[in-house]
Amino acid sequence: MKEFELINKFLKPLCAPKKHSRNLLDDTASILSKNLSELIVSKDILVENTHFKLSDKAYNIAYKALQVNISDIASSGAKPIGYLLGIGKNSQVDNDFFKEFCRGLKDVQEQFNIKLFGGDTVNSPINFFSITIFGEAQKNQILIRENAQANDLIFVSGTIGDAGLGRELLKKNNKQYPDLILRHLRPTARVKLGEQLVKNKITKSAIDISDGLLADIEKICLSAKLDAEIYTQNIPLSNSAINFLKNNQQYPAHNLLTSGDDYELVFSVKAKDIQKILDLSKKLSLNLTCIGQFKKPQKNNNYQVLLKNNLFYQELFKSNNIKFNLTKIKKLGYEHN
Amino acid sequence: MKEFELINKFLKPLCAPKKHSRNLLDDTASILSKNLSELIVSKDILVENTHFKLSDKAYNIAYKALQVNISDIASSGAKPIGYLLGIGKNSQVDNDFFKEFCRGLKDVQEQFNIKLFGGDTVNSPINFFSITIFGEAQKNQILIRENAQANDLIFVSGTIGDAGLGRELLKKNNKQYPDLILRHLRPTARVKLGEQLVKNKITKSAIDISDGLLADIEKICLSAKLDAEIYTQNIPLSNSAINFLKNNQQYPAHNLLTSGDDYELVFSVKAKDIQKILDLSKKLSLNLTCIGQFKKPQKNNNYQVLLKNNLFYQELFKSNNIKFNLTKIKKLGYEHN
Repeated sequence: MKEFELINKFLKPLCAPKKHSRNLLDDTASILSKNLSELIVSKDILVENTHFKLSDKAYNIAYKALQVNISDIASSGAKPIGYLLGIGKNSQVDNDFFKEFCRGLKDVQEQFNIKLFGGDTVNSPINFFSITIFGEAQKNQILIRENAQANDLIFVSGTIGDAGLGRELLKKNNKQYPDLILRHLRPTARVKLGEQLVKNKITKSAIDISDGLLADIEKICLSAKLDAEIYTQNIPLSNSAINFLKNNQQYPAHNLLTSGDDYELVFSVKAKDIQKILDLSKKLSLNLTCIGQFKKPQKNNNYQVLLKNNLFYQELFKSNNIKFNLTKIKKLGYEHN
Repeated sequence: MKEFELINKFLKPLCAPKKHSRNLLDDTASILSKNLSELIVSKDILVENTHFKLSDKAYNIAYKALQVNISDIASSGAKPIGYLLGIGKNSQVDNDFFKEFCRGLKDVQEQFNIKLFGGDTVNSPINFFSITIFGEAQKNQILIRENAQANDLIFVSGTIGDAGLGRELLKKNNKQYPDLILRHLRPTARVKLGEQLVKNKITKSAIDISDGLLADIEKICLSAKLDAEIYTQNIPLSNSAINFLKNNQQYPAHNLLTSGDDYELVFSVKAKDIQKILDLSKKLSLNLTCIGQFKKPQKNNNYQVLLKNNLFYQELFKSNNIKFNLTKIKKLGYEHN
């Protein structure tokens, strides 16, 4: 497919009004916003065979690519406004692929009321997608990892480990737990949560879980120079995950803490603000669970995530004879090479 | 190389102050600017074997990647302020590569006083670099292709065709014309020119030449719904290009109009503003040459670049028996697949 055709047929319907996107006719785009006092930007790249397979549904590839980028904006507490799309493509992707790909983009755009500003397409032996996402925030009103402080409680949204289980089920072509697989294929960026955390001054520090719950908490520890104590028995699991674990007692349940791709938010909260959290949880109909506390580091320059229980999700697993051995956790999450 | 090492060792020294880049510790970056009323963004991707070879010097790959992106900002008349860098890398790129790569980035950063805001690194079977560049402009003070009008004169900066010749010389390992090769390897974004064109209200429409002089003029024609008449005898050539053509009389000289990679600016000028152009040319010590005029289209929905002479660069070529046959121009420039 010619670049011209791709742009006119598929990308133009996605684009922002002309004064922003110039209808994709120029190489540049403009970002204008009445409220803009701080523009938040982030970039994420998805590469064929590393992050997706061409045999995956094009709709899902696009859906996840955009959600994952928006999740970065959510973790800063900002409001997403639009994005640039870079496409590296070979001859294996055709009209049908881009039709579905752009349908996936459109659905996510509508979910968050964002638009395509512009981008670039190039020929490449391997397919990849590079998204730059933009969000707007009030000045100095953003969530930053290093703002976490000793004694802050650690909260997490939603449930943990579903996407990791979904990924493994999909690999084995096991379709018994469709909602777990959907959590893997179509994550949801926690934009409303991020915005409300800022608006209600509940936290100054958050991260989204991409590499793994423990690995991403460790990133806050490294930035804020703190240890984190994690109460593993509190880590929230979905009913589907619990059912899966009950039915697969050989499965090492501690994997859920490190399997990543959750795109939930982890954030720090002062004890005095717990009531605000309860109110917000009700307002958003979203589980917000205390899973630990940041602590002054035991050692300088060696900031640690400390697992404080040998139990996981209350006593449930023990009574069900589920394998869960925290000493077997070798890596806190996905390690970037 | 681990992502962590790449970031800390090579990318951190390039990054913007902490309030912008968060020292590359978070997934997001902030763009703040006192003067910011319109933020200009652009994205360009460079893929191994399509845009560069791994055997190229890493310094030059980075230098060109960043200049090419800045050139998009220059073509809008904005001032570049910083960039995001996406890196797709395989195991063939090592410490030495990134050391040189980042030295190239640093030299361009210093040339334009810009900084790295953030980015993403991923593993990929093929190496690629995806840059998102940011520029700032006063509101509605930017150059846009569609603003060109009938009867506007067409000006071009610098000289045309050097980079295309340099590319071919390099392929043939012919090192006789080092300055032509350098124009290919290390283009210069015309940032000052773009800013001055806006400041002095000389033009409202510009493009940078990446795909080829004629192809890029055609893009203005398509956006502004105009024809363009090009006076081929006026197209400015460098002394090195002229020497090359004199010494290689079999070389089809008309290739220079379509070989691209010039990164000069083409812009539209009202006849009344010609004195401003002469003053600006002197001020910047940069050739600014009138090479044609935009015209009302001869046919609707079929906007054309019309070559108005059978001569090229005055009578010089004719007297030197240089092959130049405008009827042999089949494509106006690089066509994106």
